[in-house]
Amino acid sequence: MKVLIVFAHPEKRSFNGSLLDETVKYLTEKGDQVKVSDLYRMNWKTTLDENDFPSFEKGTRLYPVLQSAKSSYSEEKFTKDVMEEQEKMKWADLIILQFPFWWFSVPAILKGWVDRVFTYNFAYGLGEYDETHFGERYGEGAMVGKKGMLMVTAGGHPEIFSKRGIDGPIDDLLFPINHGLFFYMGMDVLPSFVNYQIESADEKRFQEVLGNLKKILDNIDTIKPINYRKQNFGDYVIPAATLKEGLELPGETGYDMHILKD
Amino acid sequence: MKVLIVFAHPEKRSFNGSLLDETVKYLTEKGDQVKVSDLYRMNWKTTLDENDFPSFEKGTRLYPVLQSAKSSYSEEKFTKDVMEEQEKMKWADLIILQFPFWWFSVPAILKGWVDRVFTYNFAYGLGEYDETHFGERYGEGAMVGKKGMLMVTAGGHPEIFSKRGIDGPIDDLLFPINHGLFFYMGMDVLPSFVNYQIESADEKRFQEVLGNLKKILDNIDTIKPINYRKQNFGDYVIPAATLKEGLELPGETGYDMHILKD
Repeated sequence: MKVLIVFAHPEKRSFNGSLLDETVKYLTEKGDQVKVSDLYRMNWKTTLDENDFPSFEKGTRLYPVLQSAKSSYSEEKFTKDVMEEQEKMKWADLIILQFPFWWFSVPAILKGWVDRVFTYNFAYGLGEYDETHFGERYGEGAMVGKKGMLMVTAGGHPEIFSKRGIDGPIDDLLFPINHGLFFYMGMDVLPSFVNYQIESADEKRFQEVLGNLKKILDNIDTIKPINYRKQNFGDYVIPAATLKEGLELPGETGYDMHILKD
Repeated sequence: MKVLIVFAHPEKRSFNGSLLDETVKYLTEKGDQVKVSDLYRMNWKTTLDENDFPSFEKGTRLYPVLQSAKSSYSEEKFTKDVMEEQEKMKWADLIILQFPFWWFSVPAILKGWVDRVFTYNFAYGLGEYDETHFGERYGEGAMVGKKGMLMVTAGGHPEIFSKRGIDGPIDDLLFPINHGLFFYMGMDVLPSFVNYQIESADEKRFQEVLGNLKKILDNIDTIKPINYRKQNFGDYVIPAATLKEGLELPGETGYDMHILKD
């Protein structure tokens, strides 16, 4: 298995940093190939701007989406750092985003990885947009056949992210990443590996978490992905991309109705 | 009225940039005071790291949350750019975050504004944490009495962000910002001002949007904020911070149960 881990913590000697090191070691010993994009140590350029488009004519007005499309057809395409990340994604069978949960989302440096690497004609804008098919997205796209998984640490206690917790259910908070990035590009999305109250974790807790992670990695091919509904296969009105009336179970609303239950 | 607009678009000559200019002009002519944090033009440092903490002892292990707390009690506190943003927030009666919706969230530069400016003892870690009160958050905190509003442009069509839309309902997608940032710090949160399919907007559309925005600004004191439930006033089990059983209406799940209906 080829594994890409995109890592977004400022401190390598953190809980997350140690977990990364042990994960790489474990996978390598098992014979898997691993690449790590350690965004902080790479000094990853976080902010999308005109310098992301080598063919952009400076001084003219920048339309980010149109320019991304235009650049994808140009000779220079995108910057070297961006294209290297795209190659890593194409290479990998499993893509893990590993990050501490900051303000209900990814750290800025990881959002900047998404904003810059997820270009037109790679992550979006693929396929036909017509009356029966609304682009290659949500179950189709460049990443079909690959798996994606989030590895998240949170400071809060688990109840606060439970179904009735005031911070919101963790699965809802991660939906825009799992569904909006991984599934959008066609990946199978594995349940997120979330660990709470990490500020107070000791060595025993670390070993527990590592043990749980190893079990996931050992069984990666048999873990059932989240059963998101594909966009272009009959469940949605096209081109509105709204779920057809009556398909959801009683009580399903919001994000939940986009997940097919057994 | 004192208004702070935090602006996160790379191009000033964009739809968003023009909307910003016209908003500043309109508010100023009405006699309001306006400050703009134009993050791209400020070359805002996007990534939180050890350099955000002047009292941090380089070479030691960085614990972001603990260091934020420690720095808040130190003489130097935080960096000048961060403390200036905090002063602007304290100064303002209305805080607007204006941004294009990129990958279901804010652009990285705006996430970096949050990650860096929302420090311990300013945005979080306030008040007592005991058996009856779980910090000053969600309805209490440093920003009580102020209003917050999101001004968002999205490329997609409105149906895709509707209740049955595959991208997810826009109110759910914005919940982690409205509830998790604004309301978390105690602000009254106004309904978000969202405009769709902005790539194809012409001058007529721009004037329409500007007209709608002026109406909001003219009536800012009578617009009903989103009726989020406050954390420490009886609706939640403390310290779990979970909504007490039976308080939600039938059919309310997820984020929705944290909003009190009339």
